[in-house]
Amino acid sequence: MKAHLLSDKSVKQIEIVKVKGNVSFHYMDDVSVEEPLEIRVAYHVADKKETKNISVTMRTPGNDAELAAGFLFTEGIISGREQIKDIYSPQVECSRNSENIVIVELAEGFVPELTKADRNFYTTSSCGVCGKGSIESIRTVSTFHNHTKKNTEVSLETLYQLSEKLQSFQNNFSATGGIHASGIFNLEGNLLALREDVGRHNALDKLIGYALSADLLPLDDKILVLSGRASFELIQKAAMAGITIVAAIGAPSSLAIDLAKEFDITLLGFLRDNRFNIYHSGSHFNIENIL
Amino acid sequence: MKAHLLSDKSVKQIEIVKVKGNVSFHYMDDVSVEEPLEIRVAYHVADKKETKNISVTMRTPGNDAELAAGFLFTEGIISGREQIKDIYSPQVECSRNSENIVIVELAEGFVPELTKADRNFYTTSSCGVCGKGSIESIRTVSTFHNHTKKNTEVSLETLYQLSEKLQSFQNNFSATGGIHASGIFNLEGNLLALREDVGRHNALDKLIGYALSADLLPLDDKILVLSGRASFELIQKAAMAGITIVAAIGAPSSLAIDLAKEFDITLLGFLRDNRFNIYHSGSHFNIENIL
Repeated sequence: MKAHLLSDKSVKQIEIVKVKGNVSFHYMDDVSVEEPLEIRVAYHVADKKETKNISVTMRTPGNDAELAAGFLFTEGIISGREQIKDIYSPQVECSRNSENIVIVELAEGFVPELTKADRNFYTTSSCGVCGKGSIESIRTVSTFHNHTKKNTEVSLETLYQLSEKLQSFQNNFSATGGIHASGIFNLEGNLLALREDVGRHNALDKLIGYALSADLLPLDDKILVLSGRASFELIQKAAMAGITIVAAIGAPSSLAIDLAKEFDITLLGFLRDNRFNIYHSGSHFNIENIL
Repeated sequence: MKAHLLSDKSVKQIEIVKVKGNVSFHYMDDVSVEEPLEIRVAYHVADKKETKNISVTMRTPGNDAELAAGFLFTEGIISGREQIKDIYSPQVECSRNSENIVIVELAEGFVPELTKADRNFYTTSSCGVCGKGSIESIRTVSTFHNHTKKNTEVSLETLYQLSEKLQSFQNNFSATGGIHASGIFNLEGNLLALREDVGRHNALDKLIGYALSADLLPLDDKILVLSGRASFELIQKAAMAGITIVAAIGAPSSLAIDLAKEFDITLLGFLRDNRFNIYHSGSHFNIENIL
């Protein structure tokens, strides 16, 4: 059985607070690692080796060579394994990110059809290929990063109702069972707006676009509830909108947690069935009756 | 309550076959629509209006103006609503896709920081902004599109075991509850390979990269099992690898179904608890004992 095998870099242990009913306790939890991977293609043209950055994707470390090969194949840049000569990471380029770069060197004589690579790739800035760089780049563009935070208090009862409320509003809108939702609630647990999309990042962009149009930004005394998992990309968007409390029905990634800590965003995960995990408790955030 | 509101273009009714236990019946089902949206920015430089394509995202139609505004804001291209003059779709450019293009016209005097737009955007080819165009572009690059398909037969019992098997193998590898998986099984329901990632497209690229390296392509007598939903992007990757049977634990999108039909890929969804839906039954595919 060749099923395998995330490396030991795929999972990270972090200390969280678990809340069940009205009991809370510290706990060492496993979270999935999320880090950017830059995929480069090297190929030979007239005795010169050209290297081109093709894509940056947020991925879980492990099987990176397969990821790069599979990506080039499924995007039509290569059409067979004989076109690959070698796959490797470069020598260290800057502090800690060479393991987040993979170079696919193509066989001599094969020049890839990079025009086909136009369909849907990430382009990339020069050195944002480590989680730290990604976080740094957000700090520079966030309007609300230095905004003074309000003190916020939420009751356990309010938190426990959020996932069910999001779900029941979703059921009113769509019956497909196949769509992500983002909702904003006030601190009393009333839904203010909800948006849905097959892409979770789109659902959140719609919601923030609504808040922008309605002049509600920053959303620093609201709770953002996510129907699924909390990735880096979603916390990045929340940070841009000045959101200080994010509650996800699913799990957060390692980089989402790092970003939440860096921006002092309260991040709750697995919010369902009268329980949740606290991945970061913001300095201006209090839950009534516990902690 | 301003929570709202997918338009009637957000959901599509299609005829499917539902299978429960060993009973099957036809059923009109709702699926979430997935279509590309191209976001353009128009701005004024020295009395001339420049327009630039910024991004193509696969989204559910509805609230497109909010999506475009939110995207520009969360990516740091604009920092306030006063920078937006108007948001509209262009006059019809080609057959049916003008509703899949949205132009954000910026206020005069405001020139956007498009260098900040380098972080993670989709670039786009000239006219792939309708689902049909997206499907067309895959046909041209797929190595296995004209590959002769094998007849395949699977038993109900085998199908019903797949979701549990995927889950139990996943539990062996990761305990985070926050990671997507793609697995390939043979027609007897034995797992051949499994890959995981926080990004579902990465999990599938890893799996296909493995199959490419091991010279297993095309995977036309295997079953691809997806731990979550089936989007266009995943079926596109499956098509590239010559996979002819895809079984998702979650729901498929409209465009995923369109692509499966176009490439004659058997597409099953909601495979769990001894039931599933058939969104497309490939012409070379048979389930033992039913249909």
